[in-house]
Amino acid sequence: MTVAALKAEIARRFGTPAVVVDLDVVERNVARIQAMCDAAGVANRPHVKTHKSPAVAAMQRAAGARGLTCQKIGEAEVMADAGFDDILITYNILGEQKLGRLGALLSRAKMTVAADSPTVVAGLPEAARIGGRDLDVVVECDTGRKRAGVETVAEAVALAKDIASRPGLSFAGFMLYPPEDRMAETQRFLDEALAGVREAGLDARIISTGGTPNLANLGAIKGATEHRAGTYIYNDRMMMRAGLATEADCALTVYATVVSRAAPDRGILDSGSKTLTSDTGGGLDGHGLILEHPQAKIARFAEEHGFLDLSACNDRPQIGDVVRIVPNHVCVVVNMVDSFVAVRGDEIVGEWPVAARGRLT
Amino acid sequence: MTVAALKAEIARRFGTPAVVVDLDVVERNVARIQAMCDAAGVANRPHVKTHKSPAVAAMQRAAGARGLTCQKIGEAEVMADAGFDDILITYNILGEQKLGRLGALLSRAKMTVAADSPTVVAGLPEAARIGGRDLDVVVECDTGRKRAGVETVAEAVALAKDIASRPGLSFAGFMLYPPEDRMAETQRFLDEALAGVREAGLDARIISTGGTPNLANLGAIKGATEHRAGTYIYNDRMMMRAGLATEADCALTVYATVVSRAAPDRGILDSGSKTLTSDTGGGLDGHGLILEHPQAKIARFAEEHGFLDLSACNDRPQIGDVVRIVPNHVCVVVNMVDSFVAVRGDEIVGEWPVAARGRLT
Repeated sequence: MTVAALKAEIARRFGTPAVVVDLDVVERNVARIQAMCDAAGVANRPHVKTHKSPAVAAMQRAAGARGLTCQKIGEAEVMADAGFDDILITYNILGEQKLGRLGALLSRAKMTVAADSPTVVAGLPEAARIGGRDLDVVVECDTGRKRAGVETVAEAVALAKDIASRPGLSFAGFMLYPPEDRMAETQRFLDEALAGVREAGLDARIISTGGTPNLANLGAIKGATEHRAGTYIYNDRMMMRAGLATEADCALTVYATVVSRAAPDRGILDSGSKTLTSDTGGGLDGHGLILEHPQAKIARFAEEHGFLDLSACNDRPQIGDVVRIVPNHVCVVVNMVDSFVAVRGDEIVGEWPVAARGRLT
Repeated sequence: MTVAALKAEIARRFGTPAVVVDLDVVERNVARIQAMCDAAGVANRPHVKTHKSPAVAAMQRAAGARGLTCQKIGEAEVMADAGFDDILITYNILGEQKLGRLGALLSRAKMTVAADSPTVVAGLPEAARIGGRDLDVVVECDTGRKRAGVETVAEAVALAKDIASRPGLSFAGFMLYPPEDRMAETQRFLDEALAGVREAGLDARIISTGGTPNLANLGAIKGATEHRAGTYIYNDRMMMRAGLATEADCALTVYATVVSRAAPDRGILDSGSKTLTSDTGGGLDGHGLILEHPQAKIARFAEEHGFLDLSACNDRPQIGDVVRIVPNHVCVVVNMVDSFVAVRGDEIVGEWPVAARGRLT
C-alpha cells in the first residue's frame, strides 16, 4: 500500500481524526533506547504514562526493560492486571482510597513508591499492612525542577531514616528527575545524600533517573541504577526540537481532514484542542507539524477546529485532503483516545486499546 | 453534609482528581438560559459539546430546548441513541465513512448539517440517499471569526442555490457564529444573504446564531430563529471573565489533592495537563481558580502535576488538603473524563457517564 492508499483506508475505516501508531517505528525506538541503557549499564524502567498500553509495555519488556514506571495507581492497576509484577509509582500516594488500592497492588506485585514528605511517608504503612508485605519507598529529590521532591540533602536523609523506621516500609533509595543542564549539581546532591544514609546504616539499592531528554545524559550520574523514560516510545515535536528524535523516529501521527478552505491563505482541520490538545510543548510555534505541508502552521484551535495558516505554504491542501500531524507533545494526545490504529509502514495491522486512559486516579 | 465532609467523601469514594458537577447549579443555568431564549423569541438549541451527556441534554429538553446541536457525527449518534430526534451538526461532513453514518442517522432522526463549500455540498446527497429522505442543509457564514463559513454574501447565496439544486438536499437557512462585537456587520451580511436567496425563490427557515458569549446579544440579530449555546450549562473561568457567570454559576469543579509542599511558597496538585488541560481560556492568568485559595496560582503543569505558586497566598493549603478548581475552559475538561460525580449542593447523588466522550469522529 502507498501512503496515499493508507490515508484513504484509515479515513474509510475509522474516519478522522485518527491517532495512528507505526509499530515498526515503535520497535526501532524500543531497541535503540534499550541498547543505550545497556551500554550505560543502567536498567531500563520505561514510563508507561506515554502509551498507557500493556501491549506496548510488553514490547519494552521483551527488549529487556526491567520493571515499569507509572504515574498513578490506575496505570499501575492496568499494568498489574496484564501481569507486570515490578512497578515503580513515581508519585506521592495520599489518602485512604489510594493507600487501599496500593495495598491491593502490593499483594500481587513488587511495588515501589516515591515520597517527598513525612506526611506522605506516614500514610504508607497502611498500604503495607493491607498488602501483607513490605513496601519499597524511594525518596524523591528535586535538584532544580521545582516540582515534587525534597530540596535539601538534610531532608532527603531525614526522610530516608523516617521511612526505615516505619513498620512495613523499606527505604529503597533515591528518585531523581534532574533538569538536563544540572548534572553536576545532581551528582553532588546524590553523593551527599548517599553518604548521609550510609552513615545511618542504610543502603540505597535504587538510584533512579528519569526523562527522555535525559537519555542524552545516560551514564552522567555516577551510581544511577536505572532510568525512566516515557516519550521516546513515540516521540514528538518536543523531542525533535531537543535533537533526540528525527521525523522518522516519530511513531505517532494524527490523521486529520481539511474540512474548509474559506479563504486562499487559510483552512480548517478536523482536529482541534479536543484531539491535539492545547499543549504548546514548551513554546513550540504552531500546534503540530503537518508532514505533507511543513510550511502550513496550525496557528490556533477551537475544540474541533485546527486553524491552518497557509500563507507561507506554496503547495496548499485542498478540502477533503487527509494529512498526518506530528503532535507537539505526544503523551497528552495519547491520553485523549481510547484506542489507536496500529500500522506497520503502510499496512493497517489492527486497533489497539489505550487501556489505562481514563484511569483518572 | 458540609463542604468539608463532601470533599472527604469524594476523595474516599472516588479519589482525586475528580470532576464534580452540581446538578442544582446545572438546573439553574438551564432555566436561566431557557428563559432568556424565550424572552428573546428564539428557540434554544443547546450545544452538547460541553456536556456530551444525554442525561444533561434531557434536562435542557425538559426545560424547553428545541433540538440539539452537535459538533461531530459521534456526538449525534449518542444523542440519537438516547432518543433525541432533531439534531443540527454544525460542521462540514466529508468522506464516505461519515456520509454513511450521517445517512444512518437521517433514517432515524431529523438531521440538519452545515456546509461552507461546494465540495462539502457535493458529498451530502449520498447521505440523503442512504437515509431515504431529505437532508436539511444550512450555509455556514463567517462574519469575522475566520473559522469555517463562507466569507461573502455572494458565496452564501450561490451555495444555497447549489444545495437547493441537489437531489435529496433541502436548503434550510443560514448558520452564524458571529464575533461578539460584530453584530451590525453580521446583520448586514444576513439581510443581504436573505434577500439573495429570496430572489432565487428560496426560503430560509432557520437562522441559527451561536455561542454562550452571544447570549448577551440574544435578540440582536433580527430574523434569528434559534440560538446554540454550550458552555453555559456548566460555565467556567472564561465565562466569569466575560461577565456571563459568577462563581455560583460554575457547576463543574475539579477536586484535587495537594500532594507536595516542597517549599514554603509553592506546592503540587494532583491535577495536571491530563486533567485540567493546557487550555488557557484565551490568555487567562493561571490554569484554574482554586475556590479555597483564590490567591494561589496554578502557574504551570506537568502531565499529572499542577504547580502551585503560593507566594501571594496568606492561607496556604497543606499536604493532603482537597481543593476545588473552576477550570479555565470547562468543555475540554469534560472531554477528559468518562464520568463525573453528580452532586446536589453538598450531597453526592451518583456517577454520571460522559457518554459521547471518546467519540473522536
